[in-house]
Amino acid sequence: MKIVRFTLAGRSGYGILQGERIHALWHTPFEGLTETWETLSLSEAALLAPCEPTKIIALGLNYRDHAAEFGRQVPEEPLIFMKPSTAVIGPEADIVYPKMSRRVDYEAELAVVIGKTARKVSEEQALDYVLGYTCFNDVTARDLQKKDGLFTRAKGFDTFAAMGPWIETEIADPDHLTVEAYLNGERKQHSNTSNMVFGVRRLIAFISQIMTLLPGDVIATGTPAGVGPMQPGDVVEVRVEGIGTLMNRVVSEEGN
Amino acid sequence: MKIVRFTLAGRSGYGILQGERIHALWHTPFEGLTETWETLSLSEAALLAPCEPTKIIALGLNYRDHAAEFGRQVPEEPLIFMKPSTAVIGPEADIVYPKMSRRVDYEAELAVVIGKTARKVSEEQALDYVLGYTCFNDVTARDLQKKDGLFTRAKGFDTFAAMGPWIETEIADPDHLTVEAYLNGERKQHSNTSNMVFGVRRLIAFISQIMTLLPGDVIATGTPAGVGPMQPGDVVEVRVEGIGTLMNRVVSEEGN
Repeated sequence: MKIVRFTLAGRSGYGILQGERIHALWHTPFEGLTETWETLSLSEAALLAPCEPTKIIALGLNYRDHAAEFGRQVPEEPLIFMKPSTAVIGPEADIVYPKMSRRVDYEAELAVVIGKTARKVSEEQALDYVLGYTCFNDVTARDLQKKDGLFTRAKGFDTFAAMGPWIETEIADPDHLTVEAYLNGERKQHSNTSNMVFGVRRLIAFISQIMTLLPGDVIATGTPAGVGPMQPGDVVEVRVEGIGTLMNRVVSEEGN
Repeated sequence: MKIVRFTLAGRSGYGILQGERIHALWHTPFEGLTETWETLSLSEAALLAPCEPTKIIALGLNYRDHAAEFGRQVPEEPLIFMKPSTAVIGPEADIVYPKMSRRVDYEAELAVVIGKTARKVSEEQALDYVLGYTCFNDVTARDLQKKDGLFTRAKGFDTFAAMGPWIETEIADPDHLTVEAYLNGERKQHSNTSNMVFGVRRLIAFISQIMTLLPGDVIATGTPAGVGPMQPGDVVEVRVEGIGTLMNRVVSEEGN
Protein backbone atom coordinates (compact mmCIF):
# COMPACT_ATOMS: atom_id res chain seq x y z
CA MET A 1 0.00 0.00 0.00
CA LYS A 2 1.22 3.51 -0.87
CA ILE A 3 0.38 6.24 1.65
CA VAL A 4 0.63 9.79 0.32
CA ARG A 5 0.16 13.24 1.73
CA PHE A 6 -1.29 15.66 -0.78
CA THR A 7 -2.43 19.22 -1.22
CA LEU A 8 -5.25 20.39 -3.43
CA ALA A 9 -7.00 23.74 -3.51
CA GLY A 10 -5.41 24.96 -0.30
CA ARG A 11 -6.11 21.94 1.86
CA SER A 12 -3.85 19.02 2.62
CA GLY A 13 -4.41 15.50 3.84
CA TYR A 14 -3.31 11.90 3.76
CA GLY A 15 -4.50 9.32 1.26
CA ILE A 16 -3.97 5.88 -0.21
CA LEU A 17 -2.63 5.89 -3.76
CA GLN A 18 -4.10 3.26 -6.10
CA GLY A 19 -2.96 3.61 -9.67
CA GLU A 20 -3.63 7.21 -10.60
CA ARG A 21 -6.22 7.86 -7.88
CA ILE A 22 -5.83 9.03 -4.29
CA HIS A 23 -8.38 7.77 -1.77
CA ALA A 24 -8.43 10.40 0.98
CA LEU A 25 -8.16 9.26 4.61
CA TRP A 26 -10.21 10.54 7.54
CA HIS A 27 -7.22 10.74 9.86
CA THR A 28 -3.48 10.50 9.76
CA PRO A 29 -2.28 6.99 8.90
CA PHE A 30 -1.02 6.70 12.50
CA GLU A 31 -4.62 6.80 13.70
CA GLY A 32 -5.96 4.31 11.17
CA LEU A 33 -6.39 3.83 7.45
CA THR A 34 -10.13 4.54 7.20
CA GLU A 35 -10.91 5.96 3.77
CA THR A 36 -13.38 8.73 3.13
CA TRP A 37 -15.79 8.64 0.17
CA GLU A 38 -13.54 11.14 -1.58
CA THR A 39 -11.15 10.19 -4.35
CA LEU A 40 -9.10 12.50 -6.48
CA SER A 41 -6.79 12.21 -9.42
CA LEU A 42 -3.06 12.11 -8.75
CA SER A 43 -2.62 14.54 -11.62
CA GLU A 44 -4.77 17.25 -10.00
CA ALA A 45 -3.15 17.04 -6.56
CA ALA A 46 0.42 17.86 -5.56
CA LEU A 47 2.21 15.32 -3.38
CA LEU A 48 3.79 16.58 -0.17
CA ALA A 49 6.42 14.87 1.96
CA PRO A 50 4.52 11.72 2.99
CA CYS A 51 4.69 12.46 6.74
CA GLU A 52 5.50 15.28 9.14
CA PRO A 53 8.26 14.01 11.43
CA THR A 54 8.78 15.54 14.87
CA LYS A 55 12.37 14.42 14.38
CA ILE A 56 14.60 12.90 11.73
CA ILE A 57 17.37 10.68 13.03
CA ALA A 58 19.99 9.99 10.39
CA LEU A 59 22.98 7.69 10.26
CA GLY A 60 26.62 8.49 9.63
CA LEU A 61 28.96 5.96 7.99
CA ASN A 62 26.36 3.18 7.87
CA TYR A 63 27.53 1.69 4.54
CA ARG A 64 30.91 0.01 4.33
CA ASP A 65 31.53 1.36 0.81
CA HIS A 66 30.72 4.97 1.87
CA ALA A 67 32.98 4.79 4.95
CA ALA A 68 35.76 3.53 2.67
CA GLU A 69 35.36 6.38 0.16
CA PHE A 70 35.85 8.85 3.04
CA GLY A 71 38.78 6.80 4.40
CA ARG A 72 36.91 6.15 7.64
CA GLN A 73 36.44 3.04 9.77
CA VAL A 74 32.89 1.80 10.16
CA PRO A 75 31.64 2.70 13.66
CA GLU A 76 31.30 0.14 16.47
CA GLU A 77 27.82 1.39 17.23
CA PRO A 78 25.36 3.34 15.07
CA LEU A 79 26.49 6.97 14.70
CA ILE A 80 23.41 9.17 14.78
CA PHE A 81 22.70 12.79 13.97
CA MET A 82 19.56 14.87 13.47
CA LYS A 83 18.04 16.89 10.69
CA PRO A 84 15.42 19.52 11.62
CA SER A 85 11.81 19.08 10.53
CA THR A 86 11.99 22.51 8.88
CA ALA A 87 14.33 20.95 6.29
CA VAL A 88 11.64 18.58 4.99
CA ILE A 89 10.42 18.89 1.41
CA GLY A 90 8.37 16.52 -0.70
CA PRO A 91 8.68 15.06 -4.18
CA GLU A 92 9.28 17.56 -6.99
CA ALA A 93 9.93 20.38 -4.54
CA ASP A 94 13.08 22.43 -5.01
CA ILE A 95 16.30 21.93 -3.07
CA VAL A 96 17.68 25.41 -2.41
CA TYR A 97 21.47 25.69 -2.78
CA PRO A 98 22.46 28.04 0.05
CA LYS A 99 24.82 30.95 -0.48
CA MET A 100 26.71 29.87 2.64
CA SER A 101 28.06 26.71 0.90
CA ARG A 102 30.27 26.00 -2.11
CA ARG A 103 29.66 22.24 -2.17
CA VAL A 104 26.22 20.65 -1.82
CA ASP A 105 25.95 16.86 -2.22
CA TYR A 106 23.12 14.38 -2.79
CA GLU A 107 22.95 11.33 -0.51
CA ALA A 108 20.44 8.62 -1.53
CA GLU A 109 18.95 6.70 1.40
CA LEU A 110 16.22 4.35 2.51
CA ALA A 111 14.09 6.03 5.20
CA VAL A 112 11.99 4.27 7.82
CA VAL A 113 8.71 5.91 8.89
CA ILE A 114 7.75 5.07 12.47
CA GLY A 115 4.10 4.07 12.91
CA LYS A 116 3.64 4.06 16.66
CA THR A 117 5.47 5.25 19.75
CA ALA A 118 8.65 3.21 20.20
CA ARG A 119 10.66 3.23 23.43
CA LYS A 120 13.26 0.58 24.27
CA VAL A 121 12.08 -1.75 21.56
CA SER A 122 13.90 -5.05 20.93
CA GLU A 123 15.32 -5.97 17.53
CA GLU A 124 12.79 -8.79 17.30
CA GLN A 125 9.86 -6.40 17.77
CA ALA A 126 11.35 -3.46 15.89
CA LEU A 127 9.50 -3.86 12.58
CA ASP A 128 6.14 -3.84 14.42
CA TYR A 129 6.77 -0.12 15.00
CA VAL A 130 7.29 0.69 11.32
CA LEU A 131 4.49 2.16 9.20
CA GLY A 132 6.51 1.85 6.01
CA TYR A 133 9.46 3.10 3.99
CA THR A 134 10.24 5.99 1.69
CA CYS A 135 13.10 7.45 -0.36
CA PHE A 136 15.26 10.10 1.28
CA ASN A 137 17.84 12.57 0.00
CA ASP A 138 20.07 13.59 2.93
CA VAL A 139 21.30 16.76 1.22
CA THR A 140 24.61 17.87 2.72
CA ALA A 141 26.78 20.98 2.47
CA ARG A 142 30.01 19.01 2.42
CA ASP A 143 32.29 22.01 2.98
CA LEU A 144 30.39 23.08 6.09
CA GLN A 145 30.28 19.51 7.38
CA LYS A 146 34.08 19.41 7.23
CA LYS A 147 34.45 22.85 8.76
CA ASP A 148 32.09 22.29 11.70
CA GLY A 149 32.78 18.65 12.53
CA LEU A 150 29.18 18.60 13.79
CA PHE A 151 26.60 18.01 11.05
CA THR A 152 23.66 20.19 12.08
CA ARG A 153 24.45 23.23 9.95
CA ALA A 154 25.67 21.20 6.95
CA LYS A 155 22.59 19.00 6.89
CA GLY A 156 20.03 21.35 8.46
CA PHE A 157 19.30 23.96 5.79
CA ASP A 158 15.68 24.42 4.80
CA THR A 159 14.92 21.99 1.88
CA PHE A 160 17.83 19.63 2.79
CA ALA A 161 15.59 16.68 3.76
CA ALA A 162 13.77 15.56 0.61
CA MET A 163 11.32 12.68 1.23
CA GLY A 164 8.85 10.71 -0.81
CA PRO A 165 7.11 10.17 -3.06
CA TRP A 166 5.03 8.01 -0.68
CA ILE A 167 5.27 5.59 2.22
CA GLU A 168 5.33 2.01 0.93
CA THR A 169 3.95 -0.31 3.60
CA GLU A 170 4.59 -3.59 1.78
CA ILE A 171 8.34 -4.08 2.13
CA ALA A 172 8.95 -7.58 3.44
CA ASP A 173 12.68 -7.19 4.00
CA PRO A 174 14.12 -3.66 4.31
CA ASP A 175 17.66 -5.05 4.51
CA HIS A 176 17.79 -6.21 0.86
CA LEU A 177 16.78 -3.23 -1.28
CA THR A 178 18.67 -1.55 -4.11
CA VAL A 179 19.37 2.14 -3.40
CA GLU A 180 20.37 4.47 -6.23
CA ALA A 181 20.98 8.15 -6.91
CA TYR A 182 20.68 9.67 -10.39
CA LEU A 183 21.94 13.12 -11.30
CA ASN A 184 20.47 14.51 -14.52
CA GLY A 185 19.63 10.94 -15.49
CA GLU A 186 23.10 9.50 -14.85
CA ARG A 187 23.46 6.90 -12.13
CA LYS A 188 25.84 8.09 -9.39
CA GLN A 189 25.08 5.78 -6.46
CA HIS A 190 24.17 2.11 -6.69
CA SER A 191 24.19 -0.12 -3.67
CA ASN A 192 21.95 -2.33 -1.58
CA THR A 193 20.74 -1.99 1.99
CA SER A 194 22.40 -5.37 2.61
CA ASN A 195 25.65 -3.35 2.67
CA MET A 196 24.49 -1.37 5.68
CA VAL A 197 26.67 -1.81 8.76
CA PHE A 198 23.57 -1.77 10.99
CA GLY A 199 20.27 -3.01 9.59
CA VAL A 200 16.84 -1.51 10.14
CA ARG A 201 15.93 -3.66 13.17
CA ARG A 202 19.16 -2.80 14.93
CA LEU A 203 18.76 0.91 14.20
CA ILE A 204 15.25 1.05 15.65
CA ALA A 205 16.33 -0.91 18.73
CA PHE A 206 19.40 1.26 19.26
CA ILE A 207 17.74 4.64 18.75
CA SER A 208 14.71 3.72 20.87
CA GLN A 209 17.06 2.90 23.77
CA ILE A 210 18.12 6.54 23.69
CA MET A 211 15.04 8.49 22.71
CA THR A 212 11.35 7.83 22.25
CA LEU A 213 10.36 7.58 18.59
CA LEU A 214 6.96 9.08 17.79
CA PRO A 215 4.51 8.31 14.97
CA GLY A 216 5.78 9.94 11.79
CA ASP A 217 9.36 10.18 12.99
CA VAL A 218 11.89 9.21 10.35
CA ILE A 219 15.12 7.24 10.44
CA ALA A 220 17.33 7.97 7.43
CA THR A 221 19.48 4.86 7.31
CA GLY A 222 22.66 6.25 5.77
CA THR A 223 24.05 6.58 2.27
CA PRO A 224 26.26 4.26 0.21
CA ALA A 225 29.36 5.20 -1.83
CA GLY A 226 29.16 7.59 -4.75
CA VAL A 227 28.08 10.82 -3.10
CA GLY A 228 28.90 13.90 -5.09
CA PRO A 229 28.04 17.52 -5.80
CA MET A 230 24.95 19.07 -7.32
CA GLN A 231 24.57 22.45 -9.00
CA PRO A 232 21.58 24.75 -9.45
CA GLY A 233 19.58 23.47 -12.41
CA ASP A 234 20.40 19.82 -11.71
CA VAL A 235 17.70 17.19 -11.33
CA VAL A 236 18.40 14.60 -8.65
CA GLU A 237 16.56 11.33 -8.14
CA VAL A 238 16.67 8.82 -5.31
CA ARG A 239 15.34 5.38 -6.23
CA VAL A 240 14.75 2.62 -3.71
CA GLU A 241 13.69 -0.84 -4.87
CA GLY A 242 10.05 -1.59 -4.12
CA ILE A 243 9.28 2.04 -3.25
CA GLY A 244 9.74 4.32 -6.26
CA THR A 245 11.55 7.47 -7.33
CA LEU A 246 11.96 10.74 -5.43
CA MET A 247 12.76 13.57 -7.84
CA ASN A 248 13.85 17.08 -6.90
CA ARG A 249 15.41 19.98 -8.73
CA VAL A 250 18.21 22.16 -7.34
CA VAL A 251 17.76 25.93 -7.45
CA SER A 252 20.02 28.73 -6.28
CA GLU A 253 19.12 30.68 -3.17
CA GLU A 254 18.75 33.83 -5.26
CA GLY A 255 15.94 32.14 -7.15
CA ASN A 256 13.77 32.09 -4.03
CA MET B 1 5.90 38.73 32.67
CA LYS B 2 6.31 35.05 33.48
CA ILE B 3 4.66 32.62 31.04
CA VAL B 4 4.14 29.10 32.38
CA ARG B 5 2.75 25.87 31.04
CA PHE B 6 0.94 23.86 33.67
CA THR B 7 -0.98 20.68 34.21
CA LEU B 8 -3.85 20.19 36.62
CA ALA B 9 -6.33 17.35 36.85
CA GLY B 10 -5.32 15.82 33.54
CA ARG B 11 -5.41 18.95 31.41
CA SER B 12 -2.57 21.25 30.47
CA GLY B 13 -2.36 24.82 29.28
CA TYR B 14 -0.42 28.03 29.25
CA GLY B 15 -0.78 30.79 31.81
CA ILE B 16 0.68 33.99 33.21
CA LEU B 17 2.21 33.63 36.66
CA GLN B 18 1.59 36.52 39.05
CA GLY B 19 2.87 35.90 42.54
CA GLU B 20 1.40 32.54 43.55
CA ARG B 21 -1.44 32.56 41.02
CA ILE B 22 -1.61 31.36 37.44
CA HIS B 23 -3.95 33.20 35.09
CA ALA B 24 -4.83 30.70 32.36
CA LEU B 25 -4.54 31.77 28.72
CA TRP B 26 -7.05 31.06 25.95
CA HIS B 27 -4.36 30.16 23.44
CA THR B 28 -0.68 29.48 23.27
CA PRO B 29 1.40 32.59 24.01
CA PHE B 30 2.43 32.59 20.33
CA GLU B 31 -1.17 33.38 19.38
CA GLY B 32 -1.69 36.08 21.97
CA LEU B 33 -1.73 36.65 25.71
CA THR B 34 -5.50 36.86 26.23
CA GLU B 35 -6.34 35.64 29.72
CA THR B 36 -9.37 33.54 30.56
CA TRP B 37 -11.46 34.19 33.68
CA GLU B 38 -9.76 31.20 35.29
CA THR B 39 -7.03 31.51 37.88
CA LEU B 40 -5.45 28.76 39.88
CA SER B 41 -2.94 28.46 42.64
CA LEU B 42 0.66 27.67 41.72
CA SER B 43 0.69 25.16 44.57
CA GLU B 44 -2.16 23.07 43.12
CA ALA B 45 -0.78 22.91 39.56
CA ALA B 46 2.42 21.26 38.32
CA LEU B 47 4.60 23.30 36.00
CA LEU B 48 5.60 21.73 32.69
CA ALA B 49 8.40 22.78 30.39
CA PRO B 50 7.25 26.29 29.45
CA CYS B 51 6.99 25.57 25.72
CA GLU B 52 6.91 22.65 23.29
CA PRO B 53 9.73 23.25 20.81
CA THR B 54 9.62 21.67 17.34
CA LYS B 55 13.40 21.89 17.57
CA ILE B 56 16.10 22.80 20.04
CA ILE B 57 19.22 24.31 18.53
CA ALA B 58 22.11 24.31 20.97
CA LEU B 59 25.57 25.82 20.86
CA GLY B 60 28.95 24.17 21.23
CA LEU B 61 31.92 26.05 22.69
CA ASN B 62 30.09 29.37 22.97
CA TYR B 63 31.82 30.50 26.19
CA ARG B 64 35.52 31.31 26.13
CA ASP B 65 36.04 29.80 29.61
CA HIS B 66 34.30 26.51 28.65
CA ALA B 67 36.30 26.18 25.42
CA ALA B 68 39.46 26.69 27.48
CA GLU B 69 38.56 23.98 30.02
CA PHE B 70 38.25 21.52 27.13
CA GLY B 71 41.48 22.81 25.54
CA ARG B 72 39.60 23.95 22.45
CA GLN B 73 39.75 27.08 20.34
CA VAL B 74 36.60 29.14 20.19
CA PRO B 75 34.91 28.62 16.81
CA GLU B 76 35.02 31.22 14.01
CA GLU B 77 31.29 30.84 13.51
CA PRO B 78 28.58 29.52 15.86
CA LEU B 79 28.84 25.73 16.19
CA ILE B 80 25.32 24.32 16.34
CA PHE B 81 23.82 20.97 17.23
CA MET B 82 20.31 19.71 17.96
CA LYS B 83 18.54 18.08 20.87
CA PRO B 84 15.31 16.17 20.15
CA SER B 85 11.99 17.47 21.48
CA THR B 86 11.45 14.08 23.15
CA ALA B 87 14.28 15.01 25.55
CA VAL B 88 12.35 17.95 27.02
CA ILE B 89 11.33 17.91 30.68
CA GLY B 90 10.08 20.69 32.90
CA PRO B 91 10.97 22.01 36.35
CA GLU B 92 11.15 19.42 39.13
CA ALA B 93 10.92 16.53 36.66
CA ASP B 94 13.52 13.78 36.93
CA ILE B 95 16.62 13.51 34.75
CA VAL B 96 17.07 9.80 34.02
CA TYR B 97 20.69 8.61 34.13
CA PRO B 98 20.88 6.13 31.26
CA LYS B 99 22.50 2.72 31.64
CA MET B 100 24.38 3.36 28.38
CA SER B 101 26.56 6.07 29.99
CA ARG B 102 29.09 6.21 32.83
CA ARG B 103 29.40 10.00 32.90
CA VAL B 104 26.44 12.38 32.77
CA ASP B 105 27.12 16.11 33.17
CA TYR B 106 25.01 19.19 33.91
CA GLU B 107 25.42 22.23 31.64
CA ALA B 108 23.74 25.43 32.80
CA GLU B 109 22.54 27.68 29.98
CA LEU B 110 20.39 30.62 29.03
CA ALA B 111 17.73 29.54 26.53
CA VAL B 112 15.94 31.77 24.05
CA VAL B 113 12.29 30.96 23.22
CA ILE B 114 11.32 32.06 19.71
CA GLY B 115 7.99 33.90 19.54
CA LYS B 116 7.30 34.04 15.81
CA THR B 117 8.55 32.48 12.62
CA ALA B 118 12.08 33.70 11.92
CA ARG B 119 13.80 33.23 8.58
CA LYS B 120 16.89 35.18 7.52
CA VAL B 121 16.50 37.71 10.27
CA SER B 122 19.09 40.47 10.75
CA GLU B 123 20.93 40.99 14.04
CA GLU B 124 19.18 44.34 14.40
CA GLN B 125 15.74 42.72 14.18
CA ALA B 126 16.60 39.48 15.99
CA LEU B 127 15.14 40.30 19.40
CA ASP B 128 11.76 41.10 17.81
CA TYR B 129 11.42 37.34 17.21
CA VAL B 130 11.99 36.40 20.86
CA LEU B 131 9.08 35.63 23.18
CA GLY B 132 11.35 35.42 26.22
CA TYR B 133 14.04 33.49 28.04
CA THR B 134 14.26 30.48 30.30
CA CYS B 135 16.82 28.35 32.16
CA PHE B 136 18.15 25.28 30.39
CA ASN B 137 20.15 22.25 31.50
CA ASP B 138 21.85 20.75 28.43
CA VAL B 139 22.40 17.35 30.08
CA THR B 140 25.23 15.49 28.35
CA ALA B 141 26.60 11.93 28.48
CA ARG B 142 30.22 13.07 28.27
CA ASP B 143 31.64 9.62 27.59
CA LEU B 144 29.32 9.07 24.62
CA GLN B 145 30.00 12.58 23.32
CA LYS B 146 33.71 11.77 23.19
CA LYS B 147 33.13 8.35 21.67
CA ASP B 148 30.76 9.48 18.91
CA GLY B 149 32.27 12.84 17.99
CA LEU B 150 28.72 13.77 17.00
CA PHE B 151 26.54 14.95 19.90
CA THR B 152 23.10 13.54 19.11
CA ARG B 153 23.29 10.39 21.21
CA ALA B 154 25.15 12.03 24.10
CA LYS B 155 22.70 14.92 24.34
CA GLY B 156 19.56 13.27 23.00
CA PHE B 157 18.40 10.89 25.72
CA ASP B 158 14.86 11.31 26.98
CA THR B 159 14.91 13.83 29.92
CA PHE B 160 18.23 15.42 28.79
CA ALA B 161 16.70 18.83 27.95
CA ALA B 162 15.44 20.34 31.20
CA MET B 163 13.73 23.72 30.73
CA GLY B 164 11.97 26.20 32.92
CA PRO B 165 10.56 27.13 35.30
CA TRP B 166 8.91 29.75 33.06
CA ILE B 167 9.51 32.06 30.12
CA GLU B 168 10.52 35.50 31.36
CA THR B 169 9.55 38.11 28.79
CA GLU B 170 11.09 41.14 30.52
CA ILE B 171 14.81 40.71 29.91
CA ALA B 172 16.14 43.96 28.54
CA ASP B 173 19.63 42.70 27.69
CA PRO B 174 20.14 38.93 27.32
CA ASP B 175 23.89 39.42 26.86
CA HIS B 176 24.55 40.50 30.46
CA LEU B 177 23.02 37.83 32.71
CA THR B 178 24.63 35.72 35.42
CA VAL B 179 24.38 31.97 34.67
CA GLU B 180 24.97 29.45 37.46
CA ALA B 181 24.73 25.71 38.13
CA TYR B 182 24.32 24.28 41.62
CA LEU B 183 24.78 20.62 42.48
CA ASN B 184 23.26 19.61 45.81
CA GLY B 185 23.38 23.26 46.81
CA GLU B 186 27.02 23.82 45.89
CA ARG B 187 27.80 26.28 43.14
CA LYS B 188 29.62 24.59 40.24
CA GLN B 189 29.24 27.03 37.36
CA HIS B 190 29.27 30.81 37.61
CA SER B 191 29.61 33.00 34.58
CA ASN B 192 27.82 35.69 32.66
CA THR B 193 26.31 35.69 29.18
CA SER B 194 28.68 38.58 28.43
CA ASN B 195 31.34 35.84 28.14
CA MET B 196 29.53 34.21 25.24
CA VAL B 197 31.53 34.14 22.01
CA PHE B 198 28.38 34.88 20.00
CA GLY B 199 25.58 36.86 21.63
CA VAL B 200 21.85 36.24 21.34
CA ARG B 201 21.28 38.57 18.37
CA ARG B 202 24.08 36.97 16.38
CA LEU B 203 22.84 33.45 17.18
CA ILE B 204 19.32 34.18 15.99
CA ALA B 205 20.61 35.85 12.82
CA PHE B 206 23.04 33.00 12.09
CA ILE B 207 20.65 30.12 12.75
CA SER B 208 17.79 31.75 10.84
CA GLN B 209 20.05 32.02 7.78
CA ILE B 210 20.20 28.23 7.79
CA MET B 211 16.82 27.06 9.01
CA THR B 212 13.45 28.58 9.74
CA LEU B 213 12.82 29.04 13.45
CA LEU B 214 9.23 28.39 14.50
CA PRO B 215 7.22 29.69 17.49
CA GLY B 216 8.28 27.78 20.58
CA ASP B 217 11.61 26.71 19.12
CA VAL B 218 14.46 27.03 21.58
CA ILE B 219 18.06 28.17 21.23
CA ALA B 220 20.24 26.89 24.09
CA THR B 221 23.07 29.41 24.02
CA GLY B 222 25.92 27.25 25.34
CA THR B 223 27.43 26.58 28.74
CA PRO B 224 30.28 28.28 30.62
CA ALA B 225 33.20 26.60 32.44
CA GLY B 226 32.65 24.30 35.38
CA VAL B 227 30.70 21.43 33.83
CA GLY B 228 30.89 18.23 35.81
CA PRO B 229 29.23 14.91 36.59
CA MET B 230 25.98 14.15 38.35
CA GLN B 231 24.90 10.95 40.08
CA PRO B 232 21.50 9.44 40.76
CA GLY B 233 20.08 11.15 43.84
CA ASP B 234 21.70 14.50 43.05
CA VAL B 235 19.69 17.70 42.84
CA VAL B 236 20.81 20.06 40.10
CA GLU B 237 19.77 23.68 39.69
CA VAL B 238 20.30 26.12 36.84
CA ARG B 239 19.90 29.76 37.82
CA VAL B 240 19.83 32.60 35.33
CA GLU B 241 19.71 36.20 36.53
CA GLY B 242 16.33 37.82 36.04
CA ILE B 243 14.62 34.50 35.27
CA GLY B 244 14.74 32.15 38.25
CA THR B 245 15.81 28.64 39.22
CA LEU B 246 15.27 25.40 37.32
CA MET B 247 15.54 22.43 39.70
CA ASN B 248 15.70 18.76 38.70
CA ARG B 249 16.63 15.55 40.46
CA VAL B 250 18.72 12.78 38.87
CA VAL B 251 17.38 9.22 39.05
CA SER B 252 18.80 5.98 37.74
CA GLU B 253 17.22 4.34 34.70
CA GLU B 254 16.17 1.39 36.82
CA GLY B 255 13.99 3.71 38.88
CA ASN B 256 11.75 4.33 35.86
